[in-house]
Amino acid sequence: MPFAMPSWIRHQPMVEPIECELPPPGLDDNTGDLDRLVRDLKRRGFSPLQVHPSRINHLVRQMRQGRFKVTAVLGWHLCHWELMEVFAGFEKRPLLGFAVDLGSSRLVFYLLDLRTGKLLAEDSVPNPQVAHGEDILTRLLFARKASNLRLLQRLLLDAFNRTMHQMLKDIGFSHLDVYALAVAGNTTMSHFLMGLDPTNICKEPYIPAVNRFPLCHAVDLKLAAHPQALLYLLPNVGAYFGGDLIADILAVGLHRREELSILVDVGTNAEIVLGNRDWLIACAGAAGPALEGGVVERGMMAVPGAIDRVRIDRDSLEPSYHVLGEEKAAGICGSGLIDLIAEMFMSGILTVQGKINRKMRSPRIVDTADGPAYVVARGAETIDGQDLLISEIDIGIFLKSKAAMYTILTLITGKVGLSFCDLKRFYVTGAFGNYIDPSMAIKIGMLPDLPLETYQGLGDTVGCGAAMALLDRTVLQDIERVCDQITYVELNVNMELMNEFRGALFIPHTDLRLFPSVEIPETVFG
Amino acid sequence: MPFAMPSWIRHQPMVEPIECELPPPGLDDNTGDLDRLVRDLKRRGFSPLQVHPSRINHLVRQMRQGRFKVTAVLGWHLCHWELMEVFAGFEKRPLLGFAVDLGSSRLVFYLLDLRTGKLLAEDSVPNPQVAHGEDILTRLLFARKASNLRLLQRLLLDAFNRTMHQMLKDIGFSHLDVYALAVAGNTTMSHFLMGLDPTNICKEPYIPAVNRFPLCHAVDLKLAAHPQALLYLLPNVGAYFGGDLIADILAVGLHRREELSILVDVGTNAEIVLGNRDWLIACAGAAGPALEGGVVERGMMAVPGAIDRVRIDRDSLEPSYHVLGEEKAAGICGSGLIDLIAEMFMSGILTVQGKINRKMRSPRIVDTADGPAYVVARGAETIDGQDLLISEIDIGIFLKSKAAMYTILTLITGKVGLSFCDLKRFYVTGAFGNYIDPSMAIKIGMLPDLPLETYQGLGDTVGCGAAMALLDRTVLQDIERVCDQITYVELNVNMELMNEFRGALFIPHTDLRLFPSVEIPETVFG
Repeated sequence: MPFAMPSWIRHQPMVEPIECELPPPGLDDNTGDLDRLVRDLKRRGFSPLQVHPSRINHLVRQMRQGRFKVTAVLGWHLCHWELMEVFAGFEKRPLLGFAVDLGSSRLVFYLLDLRTGKLLAEDSVPNPQVAHGEDILTRLLFARKASNLRLLQRLLLDAFNRTMHQMLKDIGFSHLDVYALAVAGNTTMSHFLMGLDPTNICKEPYIPAVNRFPLCHAVDLKLAAHPQALLYLLPNVGAYFGGDLIADILAVGLHRREELSILVDVGTNAEIVLGNRDWLIACAGAAGPALEGGVVERGMMAVPGAIDRVRIDRDSLEPSYHVLGEEKAAGICGSGLIDLIAEMFMSGILTVQGKINRKMRSPRIVDTADGPAYVVARGAETIDGQDLLISEIDIGIFLKSKAAMYTILTLITGKVGLSFCDLKRFYVTGAFGNYIDPSMAIKIGMLPDLPLETYQGLGDTVGCGAAMALLDRTVLQDIERVCDQITYVELNVNMELMNEFRGALFIPHTDLRLFPSVEIPETVFG
Repeated sequence: MPFAMPSWIRHQPMVEPIECELPPPGLDDNTGDLDRLVRDLKRRGFSPLQVHPSRINHLVRQMRQGRFKVTAVLGWHLCHWELMEVFAGFEKRPLLGFAVDLGSSRLVFYLLDLRTGKLLAEDSVPNPQVAHGEDILTRLLFARKASNLRLLQRLLLDAFNRTMHQMLKDIGFSHLDVYALAVAGNTTMSHFLMGLDPTNICKEPYIPAVNRFPLCHAVDLKLAAHPQALLYLLPNVGAYFGGDLIADILAVGLHRREELSILVDVGTNAEIVLGNRDWLIACAGAAGPALEGGVVERGMMAVPGAIDRVRIDRDSLEPSYHVLGEEKAAGICGSGLIDLIAEMFMSGILTVQGKINRKMRSPRIVDTADGPAYVVARGAETIDGQDLLISEIDIGIFLKSKAAMYTILTLITGKVGLSFCDLKRFYVTGAFGNYIDPSMAIKIGMLPDLPLETYQGLGDTVGCGAAMALLDRTVLQDIERVCDQITYVELNVNMELMNEFRGALFIPHTDLRLFPSVEIPETVFG
């Protein structure tokens, strides 16, 4: 299992199979066929109960075929139930659901058996929209033309259908066995999936068309599932706080704990939520791009070929590193960069200002047209045969990102009159956040200097949150409550922020009292 | 107005236009566009509120165009509201609705302004399904083939679209201005409109596919109205007690009165409901065909050319009559038959057994191959130039129908321990019932001998009941309550019924104490 269900989750799925043995009709009870089933289900608490008119003939045929002994499949719509399907007789076949992490670069699918809660399969594919923009802003601009918006939606839906079809085929099920999808993505991705105009997301004051999406049926989006299958898209709180973050909150149970927690989702943006069961405050900031590895010269996503772990020998200053997929190195991803810069600093190669210390002597420290640089991998070890370098310029870019992250964390915590030591749990998640080694991130002053046990390792919290909504429909009420509860703070660029930011540009910080655990080498003061 | 709205109807239509002036979005309030409107509407009590996913882009565009000053159009779905449409700015144009009397022989359309409750137009067209069966049973058999069922549905929907289009065009409106339809018909017609399989309606134990139809959208049935227009089909109570009867009950307010009333809908069948605000009992019986004029030799529907009123001079035994449409006589309709037989009886031409009294001498009394007959109209006065006769055979058929009617009335009243004199109001309605002269019906023993003021004249109660549902959505709760409350009694053919029936075959009855007001001529005892 790529994630563990929290202990408070009960098995009460969004779609329920209910076995009914109805009294057969007679002259003394001439209730209509469908009404007969609806009456029984309402008595059992499934009320209000709706039926789509287009389904009636089929449902009644099934009832007659089962001689009024049937299995009704009911879907939960938050304010009412829907009678989605009827099987003749007591039918035990699995009812399937997909939980989907709708990432801007990857789509991750979890196939669940809604009867048992078991994970049957998982798979992931690249987000096919990448062809129309690696970053979300490019896609947003592309989507301003209505036909392009439809294209982006179609690409997503096709990828959904292809992937789900293959996963179902592999375990011998049909798309008609799929009764629910719960999807969590950022605000823009969710708009793309629903074909909603995202124009106002990217211009001040950054307003989504919708935050709380209506439930829709698979047939409305031509999704390859049971026609009445429910598509539940986790709601947004704002343009930069999407359903993916809501899923994160659910997965870690932030909204149910008495103690104070903070959750940081580090992807293209850094999104932060802080609080407990009584209150929640959130903000977002553009701390991500450099962290994610997308901005520095040899930066890349955490995909095969990326250096994701680095250590530097304190004496020889020689690096050792790990490449994702055990391939030749093609670049360095975010977690690799954090490691690299932390290790360069701890080895005395970097000064507190992020400059390469020219007093240190090593064949790894070289001069380039862009100034001094450190050779992470020799040409013999790289995919293009070129040395893989990190320059002072790269480091400068990276430090701006880490400073932005620390500044945001400081501001949001201060906003509610707290300091970092009040935080009992610190969750780092997201496309990039999942790979961060907190001990390294502390050393460079990106994350606050809290006891390491405060930091919690997580799996795919987005997929987990979506799966929770599928498997426990009361989670939908949790979600409504979280959305009502969250105060979203827009962090304006002001003097306070600029002062904080300037101090955080240093490694780990100009105010070393903030990082008592970091043993700073003598050499780094340059 | 073809009907008067009862005084208890309040103006709270099924579709409401709500003017909203929303605070514009800003960095301090980044609620999504649609959520902004939904929030305002929920605060004003329109909750739960749903939106169809396919509508969101359009609705948000309208909001933006109106700079957050909008008119929202909300539709009532019994357990929730639907945001159907948004107009930019405060829009005063009428919101239209159609109330439809879905008769098996005629469709009657009433076009209403939902803002004011005013009737804007009315029209009626023949039910195009007549081509596949004059009577409903023929159509039921025809519809057993799925493609035929679809054909019958298509014929109806096409007739709806053509008629509504013309009515709208005549007063300068578009189909997009139509936001609701309330339709009342018998159980089978309602199944045909929704394309529901009616197979089990016509075989014991006579079970409709559905009694309480789900609300549907115009777009689902390809009705030419606003795509989200609500189609509310009044529910049935059973195979022989349809939404038309429910509309009747509403229109006369039977379910709201303390005093006891009875309502008899005489069409193809006779459907009866008896009760008050505390209880309702109903039954149906095949009393209609002969009454409606469809069975006797020269019988016909109440259309132009039909003799609908008859008087006979007590001395000369010469008839005078009225022909619908002031044309030459083509036949005689139900109300004409009642008049004719009552007048023949009161003139001494008929005996209590329904035989022509050969002692009476008149050129109007003739012998035919079928036995003795009475000449209602001479060849010079008829459309085909032939004498229009009524024979003893015709009279015998007719008396069976009137006996059936009286028997059913006796049984249903006795079933609840009452007698006719307990009935404070007696409503006779329906395709044929509307034309009956109660004083004549009493004389032949078809209706009980109650004070004439007990009998209430009515207009199109079916259309009226449907219009009530459109104009006062709380009527939908009345309807639910009526359906829950009604006890439907299946009148089995048993000894009790046969004894009652035999007595009722006489004119007016073998037990003359039941008809004290009828002054029986000496001659009729034959």
